[in-house]
Amino acid sequence: MSDRVLLKLGGSVVTEKGIEGMIAEGALHRIAGEIARRKQLPLVVVHGAGSCGHPEARRFHINEGVRQDNVEGVYHTHLAVSRLNAAVVGALRDAGVEAIGVHPLGACIAEAGRLRSCGHQQLLLMTDVGIVPVLHGDVVMDGSRGACIISGDQLMHLLAPLLGAERVGLATDVQGVIHKGRVVPEITPVNLGNFLIEGSSHTDVTGGMAGKLGELIALAEKGISSDIFHADRIGDFLDGKPNGGTRITGGSYD
Amino acid sequence: MSDRVLLKLGGSVVTEKGIEGMIAEGALHRIAGEIARRKQLPLVVVHGAGSCGHPEARRFHINEGVRQDNVEGVYHTHLAVSRLNAAVVGALRDAGVEAIGVHPLGACIAEAGRLRSCGHQQLLLMTDVGIVPVLHGDVVMDGSRGACIISGDQLMHLLAPLLGAERVGLATDVQGVIHKGRVVPEITPVNLGNFLIEGSSHTDVTGGMAGKLGELIALAEKGISSDIFHADRIGDFLDGKPNGGTRITGGSYD
Repeated sequence: MSDRVLLKLGGSVVTEKGIEGMIAEGALHRIAGEIARRKQLPLVVVHGAGSCGHPEARRFHINEGVRQDNVEGVYHTHLAVSRLNAAVVGALRDAGVEAIGVHPLGACIAEAGRLRSCGHQQLLLMTDVGIVPVLHGDVVMDGSRGACIISGDQLMHLLAPLLGAERVGLATDVQGVIHKGRVVPEITPVNLGNFLIEGSSHTDVTGGMAGKLGELIALAEKGISSDIFHADRIGDFLDGKPNGGTRITGGSYD
Repeated sequence: MSDRVLLKLGGSVVTEKGIEGMIAEGALHRIAGEIARRKQLPLVVVHGAGSCGHPEARRFHINEGVRQDNVEGVYHTHLAVSRLNAAVVGALRDAGVEAIGVHPLGACIAEAGRLRSCGHQQLLLMTDVGIVPVLHGDVVMDGSRGACIISGDQLMHLLAPLLGAERVGLATDVQGVIHKGRVVPEITPVNLGNFLIEGSSHTDVTGGMAGKLGELIALAEKGISSDIFHADRIGDFLDGKPNGGTRITGGSYD
């Protein structure tokens, strides 16, 4: 394993909740500062789309598949999330981080709505010379659907093993997975069921937490642990310190 | 073979000669109109960098390799050629072509200054739904040099077989390869030597024509013919009509 770190900035962290297309400039500025203070770390950043791109994806019915009659939605959805990506890259560069945006639309392909492959050698070569590649949830060409939306969480699942990431973290707007009012310190394939009971009022599975857990449990089953924590704790995560969040692990064989 | 067409717009066509960073808006507008009139053609466009990106590549000594001390040149060079790419995509979209920019920095890798691989399935899937991907000469991560500059001609060489292109054309600011004042109608690996005599005053090998020929002869040796013609003849090329230019072929076994 390398000492490479894969950090996801949740869509709810980089955009303002509930305001379509509004970028969270203040949060980006703070996060960029935290990353800039740890410049020697070989880091790959992925961010969610948050409130960017959703109106376009909806308007052009991207999730029903892409054909000639709605194909322009690929461009418009990509443009919206690329604008957010430029803001994230810009905030990082302003703080002194050698960040460069990498768009999944150009680098990856999907099949039936699932990310199938991503060019990753270029990401490794970037980290080798001190570049921080910044990827994002995007519209991606799909072998059976024409194109589809892929989340930042799907990117994390695919990229973590390809990059040989030593540490995988998801910074969100909550402290971790909350159950009965408290942060669950560890989730494994064995105890996962306790937190995913449908309709349970005890576990917060809003904000895509269920989908997130699915991707991270699949990753844990491949032997790669990950952490979900509040964006305010990014510094702690990058330093390898306790981050107050939830660790997703393969359990006994981790 | 598919009916896919691979068209390169030379750097001297899409930028103003001799004026650094100046985009040839008028030419782009005319070319976009020609392409828009043939919208049903499955087309992939590559464009050169022309006068964009060169000042940045020179300032940061990209061609001497990229290390931590000149790594910011990757971003600045990429930004300059991406700006040109956005102008080419914009002109095509304004004319009604479903164009989308694809950046080699995110999609390709090089080794010792040569393009080694490029994600191409996404390009095929794009043409399947009527999208025209638009790639460009770019800075690309390089396994031995950190990063390097790759030309649009290198992209043509790599992509033509991967895309199974039926027709490959290079639109330039000259009519073709000129020898003793006339357009050479056909160049093959056999007669190539006649036109590449160093210091010859009879053949125009300026404007990167020698490098272009090298890439296209290598392509011809793989059984893929190509045409070099004046940008004013793009319509003829797209229609499969005589374009007044030079055909580069494998000769007898073509």
